[in-house]
Amino acid sequence: MLLEPANAGADPALALVRDIYPADLLVPVSHARPRQPGEKPFVTLTYAQSLDGKIAGKGGKQLLLSGQESMTLTHRLRQLHDSILVGVGTVINDDPQLTARIPHLLPLKDQPLPIVLDSSLRMPLTSKLLSNARKGISKAPLVVCKRLRVGEKGLESQAISEAGGKVYIANDFGRGIDLRKFIHDPAATPFLGRSLMVEGGASVISSFLATPGLVDLVIVTVAPVLVGDEGVSVTKEGVDLPRLEHVRTQVFGKDAVFVCKPVYP
Amino acid sequence: MLLEPANAGADPALALVRDIYPADLLVPVSHARPRQPGEKPFVTLTYAQSLDGKIAGKGGKQLLLSGQESMTLTHRLRQLHDSILVGVGTVINDDPQLTARIPHLLPLKDQPLPIVLDSSLRMPLTSKLLSNARKGISKAPLVVCKRLRVGEKGLESQAISEAGGKVYIANDFGRGIDLRKFIHDPAATPFLGRSLMVEGGASVISSFLATPGLVDLVIVTVAPVLVGDEGVSVTKEGVDLPRLEHVRTQVFGKDAVFVCKPVYP
Repeated sequence: MLLEPANAGADPALALVRDIYPADLLVPVSHARPRQPGEKPFVTLTYAQSLDGKIAGKGGKQLLLSGQESMTLTHRLRQLHDSILVGVGTVINDDPQLTARIPHLLPLKDQPLPIVLDSSLRMPLTSKLLSNARKGISKAPLVVCKRLRVGEKGLESQAISEAGGKVYIANDFGRGIDLRKFIHDPAATPFLGRSLMVEGGASVISSFLATPGLVDLVIVTVAPVLVGDEGVSVTKEGVDLPRLEHVRTQVFGKDAVFVCKPVYP
Repeated sequence: MLLEPANAGADPALALVRDIYPADLLVPVSHARPRQPGEKPFVTLTYAQSLDGKIAGKGGKQLLLSGQESMTLTHRLRQLHDSILVGVGTVINDDPQLTARIPHLLPLKDQPLPIVLDSSLRMPLTSKLLSNARKGISKAPLVVCKRLRVGEKGLESQAISEAGGKVYIANDFGRGIDLRKFIHDPAATPFLGRSLMVEGGASVISSFLATPGLVDLVIVTVAPVLVGDEGVSVTKEGVDLPRLEHVRTQVFGKDAVFVCKPVYP
């Protein structure tokens, strides 16, 4: 959706995005090759962390880590991607809007479609994702839950729909949502679009990173802040991490942004 | 010791050092104000870490994190500082030389004096710090141990002296060396000089960071590498961390270097 080459020089975030993404993600949907049902979107995993690798405070408490300059990059990335995914924990803890504001709110057609991984339908009905959808400033969030037993969670499901969301039932009975199956589900393709941005929280980032073949680009903002041992890390015990192939390191204000491609053995 | 202003433009590491350090550290010893006995040196804490905040692998295994460009900065910092401190664990695990090589080995007079915190005299007699001192390419390392009981560790102490080192007995009987007492000990001033660089490992960095009033500048190199949960972090459980006041963020090759001042409540 990024059609502003003339501004790129004055906007380092836009210039970076135009440099690192494939050309067919930089054109409007109408100019792009349509995705086949079940075709994986281009997936960007992005998060901000402290110098000591924490993305949240004690007990998942939200931290304001990114400076203004690196936040601009986040909003450019939201503008670029067709969909944007978070875990329901992030919705409960941070109540994010997930809208692109550069600095003003972009029109609805240029907003990413929010996707919430919410295996047991804990989505707060008062969340900004739902109220923004009702106001028409954000697309209707897709709330992805596990297959329900007959009668189970029927009320929650109905309430989310009535509050402006759309419930998507994944064919999973296990501990969480099977990310690989969801990303390749033909029924999910119209929601995922060409490109998916994964923003958090720690367990969602960790799961995407640990699943080979899902993530195309990792963009990490590091802020010069120390959080300490009680903060929440992205890299969890027992999680196999990919090797990172370096693409770019760039300073945004006080922060450094690392762009890498994950490589799996 | 940095007397090369003409080269600064072509050497980003030298330019950074000239920018961030007080003027009286940038002149040769002969031009500088002599330090009073017990006067604290200017202390730089510096380390390289992975993106996920690890400075060593499982069990303290050495990691090659810094790229060539950020290693150049490390050597410029070694050239600048009068003394350079590590824990004996780092000597045992990594056997570092701690010499300034830009890229060729600088003359002995421009090398920092190595200091090893080694409370119970575990210093390996085969270490490069000792053999380099015997060869005359490095200054005699100061091995700082706790006060010995009569007869205790006498042989180790003598062997270190014979191998080219100098044993310094701190007035401590506790768990480790009292850093604050050591840094302000008038007997240590001739070894510490105007400026001390602290390079590692994790527990030494952690102790310096947790002691208010010791560290003047923190310089952290972040490399785009993931190590995972088994690696060693700088920020340990129960350690109170300072707030960081931002000075500079700069890209060196693939790495980002953060320069900050620690601020204690």
